[in-house]
Amino acid sequence: MEIAANNPSLKSWVEVPENSDFPIQNLPFGIFKTNQLTARVGSRIGDMVIDLKSLFVLGYFTNLPFEMKDFDSQTLNSLMKKGKKGTRDLRNRLSKLLEIGHTDLKINEHHVDQVFIPVDQVEMLLPVEIGDYTDFYSSREHATNVGTMFRDPNNALLPNWLWIPVGYHGRSSSVIVSGVDIHRPKGQIRPIATEDPILSASQRVDFELEMGFITYDGKPLGDSISTEESEDFIFGMCLFNDWSARDIQTWEYVPLGPFLAKNFASSMSPWIVTLDALEPFRIEGPKQEPEVLSYLKFEGKKSYDIQLEVALKPELVEETTICKSNFKYMYWNMSQQLAHHTINGCNIRCGDLMGSGTISGPTPDSYGSMLELSWKGEKPLTLKDGTERKFVKDNDTVIMRGHAEKDNVRVGFGEVRSKLLPAKN
Amino acid sequence: MEIAANNPSLKSWVEVPENSDFPIQNLPFGIFKTNQLTARVGSRIGDMVIDLKSLFVLGYFTNLPFEMKDFDSQTLNSLMKKGKKGTRDLRNRLSKLLEIGHTDLKINEHHVDQVFIPVDQVEMLLPVEIGDYTDFYSSREHATNVGTMFRDPNNALLPNWLWIPVGYHGRSSSVIVSGVDIHRPKGQIRPIATEDPILSASQRVDFELEMGFITYDGKPLGDSISTEESEDFIFGMCLFNDWSARDIQTWEYVPLGPFLAKNFASSMSPWIVTLDALEPFRIEGPKQEPEVLSYLKFEGKKSYDIQLEVALKPELVEETTICKSNFKYMYWNMSQQLAHHTINGCNIRCGDLMGSGTISGPTPDSYGSMLELSWKGEKPLTLKDGTERKFVKDNDTVIMRGHAEKDNVRVGFGEVRSKLLPAKN
Repeated sequence: MEIAANNPSLKSWVEVPENSDFPIQNLPFGIFKTNQLTARVGSRIGDMVIDLKSLFVLGYFTNLPFEMKDFDSQTLNSLMKKGKKGTRDLRNRLSKLLEIGHTDLKINEHHVDQVFIPVDQVEMLLPVEIGDYTDFYSSREHATNVGTMFRDPNNALLPNWLWIPVGYHGRSSSVIVSGVDIHRPKGQIRPIATEDPILSASQRVDFELEMGFITYDGKPLGDSISTEESEDFIFGMCLFNDWSARDIQTWEYVPLGPFLAKNFASSMSPWIVTLDALEPFRIEGPKQEPEVLSYLKFEGKKSYDIQLEVALKPELVEETTICKSNFKYMYWNMSQQLAHHTINGCNIRCGDLMGSGTISGPTPDSYGSMLELSWKGEKPLTLKDGTERKFVKDNDTVIMRGHAEKDNVRVGFGEVRSKLLPAKN
Repeated sequence: MEIAANNPSLKSWVEVPENSDFPIQNLPFGIFKTNQLTARVGSRIGDMVIDLKSLFVLGYFTNLPFEMKDFDSQTLNSLMKKGKKGTRDLRNRLSKLLEIGHTDLKINEHHVDQVFIPVDQVEMLLPVEIGDYTDFYSSREHATNVGTMFRDPNNALLPNWLWIPVGYHGRSSSVIVSGVDIHRPKGQIRPIATEDPILSASQRVDFELEMGFITYDGKPLGDSISTEESEDFIFGMCLFNDWSARDIQTWEYVPLGPFLAKNFASSMSPWIVTLDALEPFRIEGPKQEPEVLSYLKFEGKKSYDIQLEVALKPELVEETTICKSNFKYMYWNMSQQLAHHTINGCNIRCGDLMGSGTISGPTPDSYGSMLELSWKGEKPLTLKDGTERKFVKDNDTVIMRGHAEKDNVRVGFGEVRSKLLPAKN
């Protein structure tokens, strides 16, 4: 598939700083507001947010299948209801308007003044009204690390892991956008396994480096989505921090899975980078052995080369990068996840969020959680300020960043950041 | 708390058949439509559905905090946004209008003709736009049965069970209303534990007899709801069939819990019976030993005496009642479930659904699932037509019913019924 808007030689008449995540080849979607402007749909180029509602009002989206309400909205859901073709055509149009040599918008100073807003003047909001949120567990390295730590190092992967893109349902209500701080959760923990549990602030708050994808409307209940069809149902991706309280999790998760250990908060980056924009960064995924069942087979490249990193920033001190990973390490790809999720007839809806699960790579500096990086606290990390970390401390900020790069084009996600405030009393 | 609308001596000028679930003391809320009328909010008395949108338009709800859109809606969410006081006042007003001796509505024949619609002329719709759906696991008898079958009969309950109202997140998108049939799900199963898994239609489709409750808006993310406050956040209850595919569940559920084994469908009854209407049926719950942690302690009667039953009806044959249980058997009550769910700061929203978990009683005829009734298939049930069942067969209809009864007043839920159609090919 060729998408004009992805051409690596494209340049824009809008200035894009070097190493920006947001060249003309990206053009993600998000929701922003300013002191003057109500919440609405925006895109981004360089350090400018593009007010798509204004572009619509000014007539730049003629002959596209959108209405005012699709842009004058607190979520992207209405826009996403137009499906892959609609959003693709919109991004292509936007690319055309911003392309060097294209003057429709550029020559109209008043329009330019109205449409472009410096990114430091906007507040980004949660971009999607999330219907259901599913979290997968699709990094073999992560599952192996967890299995090694808590079960049997010689049989670290559970018997179903290589057959099933294991997943479980999470909580939509507590998904928050980058910049929203959270409180250390309280809950039942059992510090000494032979004694009774206690109510306590969690002593083992962790992040999980994940990516998420957002779906278009799916099929009716009872129907399945094949791997071949799957990309027609994926709008785009974001960075995702699946906050976890390991001590709450340990006590609660058998037999029905994680619950309060996860649902106190999950943070997502504000810009949804379309699957279209990620097209140039497809690569082969890990070899799958044993051979997967028929409904999980796929053709072509379904993995993406997206460089990821996590930084930890104590209060008033510079950040330390503590993890460098890559989305390409995922054993199960998004097409397989969707095919599995719907093989039983489960329906997906516009605005569902699917998390990848922690994305760990093969080396210890690529592990995607404190649990793994500090090997359940046995090997504390030393930060630039000399302090040590086994898990996240009060007032630490966790920052995740990600971008893909090829042919001198860098398409990125910006960041998801969130500070862990002390527990409420 | 005294609620006028619950007075057992109340009678209505509307005829209510003997043994109806819907006397004037009930007045539940639901969403209905007819061939002539668009989807809207209704209540029910006897065999009549009450068109609340029409009552609003006709001016019977003056001085109540409602607008047209609260009744002219495909879901109850807008109505529930008014909170406990709003919906209580509405139910009280409705009770007043229907009370024998009260003639405002009764004497206006045109209004009566417009407002009351025979129940066989309406289609009931899913009453709530469900934000998040959580399922608990709160019947000690059920957890003990499952533990006995699959783990250790001498240590059937897991260590956390008597400390935590164990719960997990379910899927909102596939919650359907009574009357919607489902297809047997397909998925990965492993019929022989030493061999590779296969893709197959589930061979062990089961129901789970549950009740659900629907929440009002909760508190902001980071805050908790105490057991004392909990009932201010509960709108009402319904019957709930948490369809399950046991063979899919067995293969997938370790370590993150049930996923595709559950999310192919969950069926709920269409009428939400308010917690107010259930007030007279409060009783003491089971003694909790060991003593629960502070945040799970509560005052007063938090259990409800609600008789439940499940019937199985093969195609073209009369139904057989296969289970008689009671909501009062629940070890953990709804107040404890809500307090636990929010102790970590997890937020709940208007329209969330909380399932009780399978409600099994102490005797084998009170077990709330086929898994338990047939003891994982070892003791097939014999139906009235002479056929046997280990699990649910194609074209079987599962029907759940429930009602509370005291002082000659019967407040019921009607039923939730759904037929299991063969797997799609």
